[in-house]
Amino acid sequence: MTTVAAYAAPSAKAPLERTTIERRAVGEFDVLIDIKFAGICHSDIHQAQEGWGEAIFPMVPGHEIAGVVAEVGSGVTKFAVGDRVGVGCMVDSCRECDNCKAGLEQYCTGGGMIGTYNALDKNGEPTYGGYSQQIVVDENYTVRIPDGLSLDVAAPLLCAGITTYSPLKHWGAGPGKKVAILGMGGLGHMGVKIAHALGAEVTVLSQSLRKQEDGLKLGADHYYATSDPKTFEELAGTFDLIVSTVSAPLDFGAYLSLLKTDGALVNVGAPEEPISLNLFSVIGNRKTLAGSMIGGIAETQEMLDFCAGHGFGAEIELIAASEINEAYERVLASDVRYRFVIDTATI
Amino acid sequence: MTTVAAYAAPSAKAPLERTTIERRAVGEFDVLIDIKFAGICHSDIHQAQEGWGEAIFPMVPGHEIAGVVAEVGSGVTKFAVGDRVGVGCMVDSCRECDNCKAGLEQYCTGGGMIGTYNALDKNGEPTYGGYSQQIVVDENYTVRIPDGLSLDVAAPLLCAGITTYSPLKHWGAGPGKKVAILGMGGLGHMGVKIAHALGAEVTVLSQSLRKQEDGLKLGADHYYATSDPKTFEELAGTFDLIVSTVSAPLDFGAYLSLLKTDGALVNVGAPEEPISLNLFSVIGNRKTLAGSMIGGIAETQEMLDFCAGHGFGAEIELIAASEINEAYERVLASDVRYRFVIDTATI
Repeated sequence: MTTVAAYAAPSAKAPLERTTIERRAVGEFDVLIDIKFAGICHSDIHQAQEGWGEAIFPMVPGHEIAGVVAEVGSGVTKFAVGDRVGVGCMVDSCRECDNCKAGLEQYCTGGGMIGTYNALDKNGEPTYGGYSQQIVVDENYTVRIPDGLSLDVAAPLLCAGITTYSPLKHWGAGPGKKVAILGMGGLGHMGVKIAHALGAEVTVLSQSLRKQEDGLKLGADHYYATSDPKTFEELAGTFDLIVSTVSAPLDFGAYLSLLKTDGALVNVGAPEEPISLNLFSVIGNRKTLAGSMIGGIAETQEMLDFCAGHGFGAEIELIAASEINEAYERVLASDVRYRFVIDTATI
Repeated sequence: MTTVAAYAAPSAKAPLERTTIERRAVGEFDVLIDIKFAGICHSDIHQAQEGWGEAIFPMVPGHEIAGVVAEVGSGVTKFAVGDRVGVGCMVDSCRECDNCKAGLEQYCTGGGMIGTYNALDKNGEPTYGGYSQQIVVDENYTVRIPDGLSLDVAAPLLCAGITTYSPLKHWGAGPGKKVAILGMGGLGHMGVKIAHALGAEVTVLSQSLRKQEDGLKLGADHYYATSDPKTFEELAGTFDLIVSTVSAPLDFGAYLSLLKTDGALVNVGAPEEPISLNLFSVIGNRKTLAGSMIGGIAETQEMLDFCAGHGFGAEIELIAASEINEAYERVLASDVRYRFVIDTATI
């Protein structure tokens, strides 16, 4: 066991504060990671505030982790001390169900994936996330951060990157395809970069044109404000795929109307409340409303290699740990371009 | 112009009564069909009662039409007098949009398909459906009823058959796939027959076990009552595909929980009111909520050939035209096994 400094929410909706947590001893297949950077994901806030249901406190959020291997267990073969590595939204799963075997660990049916925080591990111990100085993770749930990708801009890829990469790949974003990214935040800005790099024609649908310049710079071909009703007239029946990164309630009928026949509106953002949907919106042109959750471990590695190959990470604002609570306020106000990343040396 | 006898709803929610309508003169590419049988579809009732919005009256419902060609226009090449033919839910479309060219006329984006009734044709004249003695239809929107398929049991295939065949094919029902048919009515019983004939393992999900014997006889491998909460425990994560034929409000979260990862719940039934959906139901295992509407003309022909090849039509109760209003009541009470078909000789 090692005692490490961390930032934790002591209870639901309480501000995060500095504390210490225990990390397990490095097991046979574990790597001990010196965390260098941890991204702040909107879902950290959802969970710390119990917006998605009852949570485990104290909570150390953080599932966008980039660091350096400090120690490896005797059975570890994939990593060595000094390797640059990342950890995303899960640190384990059953490893035996069809989904785990197929590299879809995030959809593990053998009890579900074990979240990097706000979960219990196989020993019943609470997991603690990346807002901390070190973490111990099984090598099979650890990925390699390619050379040439700085750790700070790599951190957000572990959630925001894979969450958008996976559905873009699964639903065939690429040359000849018209893809819209709904929401231009932490996930959305990665969706734009990745969809563009995949070769799709990319449109950003954002509440306003405030971030238009950024969007076009990151690879969008078009940028529309969803607050303008003309957007929905002009773009009716346009897209093969819309990836919605928005977790606020939306008029789903209106967004479905922007799809072509056989188009898909894929949600990676998760509103806390049920949505209302007229099924004629999907029946009329054989449309799909679907969802997607992060990606598997192998696919996360593939995504990191893809981003590194295209020379991009996330757009970030680096903050000190003492600024986490303020950063949460700013995330809720959509006031971040485009991901806060904690320099964990400041914890 | 020809005057023909028909049954029509004079206004919304008024009982249907005998009347006469005018059919256009047979044009160059038209066929005049002596209608022999017309199925009663739940959507006839939705439309006659304006449940789906404002409708055109007087309304002659009926888009499950089987008959015999009585006359052909000078340019007709596909049909000859005496041919056994069917007409389904549409009698025209733009013929120029990508969807029309791709055989997806039902999703025509060039103004939309022209419904067999409750629509205006390209001359602005109201269309009248199958509860009548004759109809004039362009040969391109007419299909051939294969020898060996009786016209009475063929009629319902024109809507109930294609409405279930198309999504079953599109979403890959076949050997090795577990398919559930939700609802054991006019559409549902065809879904069972077709999914079974396609080689899928078929489960019926019906409110009660009242029709279990029929379901198993028609090809279902399993039959569950959705009124029993144990059904949802036992079948969690089971199906690759659920085709919902139900137009009543449902707990969609509960039905989505029955799907495997990457499974699809496809709606061919259309509730009049918006549904409520927690998006976590689709995000959790990359599930799809989709819709499908009838099928294209070529696919309708393919379906008729498929059904004839497998030696089945619909299960019907043949009625006289004078029984239409009573039949409507019985459809609304789910008291039909499994499709009412009007013998149009009784009009």
